[in-house]
Amino acid sequence: MTSDRILATYLLETPFPLETAAEAMAGEQSSGTFVAVPGETDDLRLRHRATVEQMIKLEPVSEPSLPGSKPPTGSTGYNRARIIISFPFDNVGTNLPTLLSTVAGNLYELREVSGLKLIDLDFPPQFADAHPGPQFGIHGTRELIGVHEGPLIGTIVKPSVGLTPEQTADLVRELGEADIDFIKDDELMADPPHSPLERRVEEVMRVINELADRTGKKLMYAFNITDDIDNMLRHHETIRNTGGTCVMVSLNSVGMAGVAYLRKHCELPIHGHRNGWGMLTRHPWLGISFRAYQKLWRLIGIDHIHVNALQNKFWEPDESVVDSVNACLEPLLGGYQVMPVLSSGQWGGQAPETWRQTGTTDLMYLAGGGIVAHPGGPAAGVRAIRQAWDAAVTETNLYDYAATHPELQQSIEAFGKRDG
Amino acid sequence: MTSDRILATYLLETPFPLETAAEAMAGEQSSGTFVAVPGETDDLRLRHRATVEQMIKLEPVSEPSLPGSKPPTGSTGYNRARIIISFPFDNVGTNLPTLLSTVAGNLYELREVSGLKLIDLDFPPQFADAHPGPQFGIHGTRELIGVHEGPLIGTIVKPSVGLTPEQTADLVRELGEADIDFIKDDELMADPPHSPLERRVEEVMRVINELADRTGKKLMYAFNITDDIDNMLRHHETIRNTGGTCVMVSLNSVGMAGVAYLRKHCELPIHGHRNGWGMLTRHPWLGISFRAYQKLWRLIGIDHIHVNALQNKFWEPDESVVDSVNACLEPLLGGYQVMPVLSSGQWGGQAPETWRQTGTTDLMYLAGGGIVAHPGGPAAGVRAIRQAWDAAVTETNLYDYAATHPELQQSIEAFGKRDG
Repeated sequence: MTSDRILATYLLETPFPLETAAEAMAGEQSSGTFVAVPGETDDLRLRHRATVEQMIKLEPVSEPSLPGSKPPTGSTGYNRARIIISFPFDNVGTNLPTLLSTVAGNLYELREVSGLKLIDLDFPPQFADAHPGPQFGIHGTRELIGVHEGPLIGTIVKPSVGLTPEQTADLVRELGEADIDFIKDDELMADPPHSPLERRVEEVMRVINELADRTGKKLMYAFNITDDIDNMLRHHETIRNTGGTCVMVSLNSVGMAGVAYLRKHCELPIHGHRNGWGMLTRHPWLGISFRAYQKLWRLIGIDHIHVNALQNKFWEPDESVVDSVNACLEPLLGGYQVMPVLSSGQWGGQAPETWRQTGTTDLMYLAGGGIVAHPGGPAAGVRAIRQAWDAAVTETNLYDYAATHPELQQSIEAFGKRDG
Repeated sequence: MTSDRILATYLLETPFPLETAAEAMAGEQSSGTFVAVPGETDDLRLRHRATVEQMIKLEPVSEPSLPGSKPPTGSTGYNRARIIISFPFDNVGTNLPTLLSTVAGNLYELREVSGLKLIDLDFPPQFADAHPGPQFGIHGTRELIGVHEGPLIGTIVKPSVGLTPEQTADLVRELGEADIDFIKDDELMADPPHSPLERRVEEVMRVINELADRTGKKLMYAFNITDDIDNMLRHHETIRNTGGTCVMVSLNSVGMAGVAYLRKHCELPIHGHRNGWGMLTRHPWLGISFRAYQKLWRLIGIDHIHVNALQNKFWEPDESVVDSVNACLEPLLGGYQVMPVLSSGQWGGQAPETWRQTGTTDLMYLAGGGIVAHPGGPAAGVRAIRQAWDAAVTETNLYDYAATHPELQQSIEAFGKRDG
C-alpha cells in the first residue's frame, strides 16, 4: 500500500469465490467493465487499476442478504469477508463527490455481490490540503457558548412543527432562563409558511440576545436552514447579522456539494443532522457504516454531527452508538475535530451509561420531549438533565442522587418506565 | 385528501399492529415525539399532524426484514401493508431537501418498523410553481443532436479511467465518424490529475466541432462535472464556451441542493447519473423506489436520468427497469419531461426485448464495452447497435436480421453468449 492511495474497507458477501467478487469490485470501479476493452493496456491497468489489498474471511452463510446476485454453477452458499480495496489517488484527485461515486457507487448493484457495506475510508494527505474541515469543532463551539467543560445540554423545539415564531421564542426564553446551552430546530422545521425562518430568527434572537445581555451567557440556537443554496446562504446571513451562532443542515437531503458550498461561505458552526441515515445503514449487509460516513462530512467541514444516543427511541443498539461517538473523537488526518451530538429519546436517565461507555463529556446531549414534557416544565427538565450528568460523572447511583434532586426524581417517574 | 397535502406511499413492515406503526410514522414525522408534549394542542395537531390516508394489507411474514425492531409482548409475526401518509403543505412548503427529510428522514430508524420503503410521492400544484424542472427534456435533447426519432445511441468512454485527454478525443473521433449520437464520461472520470476536465473539454470539443462542421451533426458529449459547486459552475462555463452541449452529474454524490444550484445557472442539458442508487433500493424492504426518486430529480430539473437497462450486468430484474422507464415517461404535474437512459452491459442484443417491453424509442441506449470492445472496432459497434434497433422496431428476428448485417452478427458472436 503506497501512501497516495485511497483505502476503502468493505464487508462483502458473495455467491462467487471471494477473490472473484473482490476483483469484480476493483475492476468495475476503476479501469474495467463487463468485457475487456482495447484501451485497457497493461500500462493503464498498472497506473489506474484498483487493488484488493487485504481479505479477512468470515463465516459463510446459506442465504443471501440481498436479492439479485447470480450464483455461479456449483456454488453452494454465500462467502463473507472483510476486504480492503485501494484506489490510486490519480483516479479521483481530492474531488469528494467523485470519491463517493468511486467507493460507494455502482458496486452495490453488482450481481457478484449479495451483500456490501462500506465500513471505513482512509485518505492520503492530499485530502487534508484540499479540504479545510470544521471551522469550530468542539473547542470553538464551547468558546461560543462559554461552557468549557461537561456535556453541552440541549433540546429540540417540540412540537417539531406547528409552533409560530412567537411560540418558539417563548419556549426559548423559558429554556434560556433555565441556563440551557443549546437549542435546535427539529429537522422537519426549516422555512415553512407557518413559521418563516426570517421571522423565527428575529423572534428567537431577540430573546437570546436579551438573555445574553442579562446573564453574560449566549445560548447557541441551531436554526435549520436546510433548503436550496441561495436560501441557505441568505438565511445564514440573517442569522449571523442578528447575533446567531449556529446553522443546522440535514446532510443527506442537502448533499455533499451543497454543504461544502455552505461551509465555504459560512461564519458559524454547522450542526449536521443525519436524518435519512437509517436508509443507508440499517441493513447490516448494505450501505455504509457511520465510521466511513462521518469522515466524509468532517472533510467537508461540519462542526457537529448527530450519532443517535444510548437507549434511544430508534432501532440502533448501544454498541453501534458508542462506536459512532468514538469515531467522531478520533483524529482524522491529524485533526478535523467534530462534536458528537447524542439525541433520540433522551431524558437524563441514559447519562450514567453514556458516561460509562464513552468516558467523555465532549458531546452534546439533547433531549426533546425529555425536557419540554418534563412534569415541572422545561426549566425543570434542563435541571434534571444536569443533575443526571452530575450523578454520571461522579459515578453516583442515579436513584440515590434523585432522592435529593427533585427534578431528576420527577424525570425518573415520568420517563423512566418507558422501556421497563 | 385535500389538494394541498403531500402524499407519500410506503411499503411498511412491523411487529406492531399496522395502525400503531403507521401512526408512529405519521407522528414522528409531524407534530409528535416519544412522549406527549404540552405544546401539541388539538388545534396544532389538526393543522399539522400527518395523516394515514390509506392502508392495503399484505401477507404477513414470520421473520423481520431489518434488525432492531422491538416486537410488543404477544406479537407473533411481522405485518405488512402498502400505506399512504399525507403531510400538510404548510409543514414543509416547497423546500425539497426538507421534503426529503420529512418523507424519508428519521422514519427508517423507528423501532416500530422492521421494513420500510418509500415507493411513491405526489405533490400539490404549488411544487410546479416553485420548481422549473428540466430545461431540455426529451424534445430539447433531440433538437440539440438533430435526431428526431428512434433511440439516441450512445456510449461511455472506456476504459472508465486512465485515458489521457488526447486518447479520449481519438476515441470520440472514431465514434463520431460512425455517426454516434451521444458519448459520456464514466462516472468515475471527473477532473482527475491524469485527465483534467478543462484539457479534456478542449481536446474532445475540437474533434466534435470539426466533425459537426463537416457533417452538419453535432454529437452530444456529457462531460462529468461532478465536483464542488464552484468547479461545477466553472466547468459548465468552459463546456458551453467551447460549444459543448451537455453536462453530467452524479446525483447522489452531489446531492439535491448542489444539482438544483447547477440547474439554476446551467444553459445545457443535465445528464443525471444515479450511481450509489443500489444502496438506496436494492433491499426490497428498505429505502426508496425509483418511482419516488425520479420525481424529486425531475422537479429539480435534470434532463436525462439513468434507469439501468434490460438484461443488464447488475442485479436488477427487467420488470423493475421497465417500471423505471415508464415512470420517467409519465407526466409529472402535467410535464417535467425527462429522458430515460438505458445503460449497463448493453450491446444491442437487448434492443428487441427493450422495444417489446417499453414500446418507446424516446430513450438513450448506451453501450460502453458493447461498442468500444466490438471486434470490428467502435464504429462497427455503433452500426451493430443501430442494426439491432432497426430489427427491434420492425419486429424482425435479430438473428435473421444479423444474417445480412455483419456488424450485428459480430456483436452476437462476441457478446451474445455472456448469459447463456
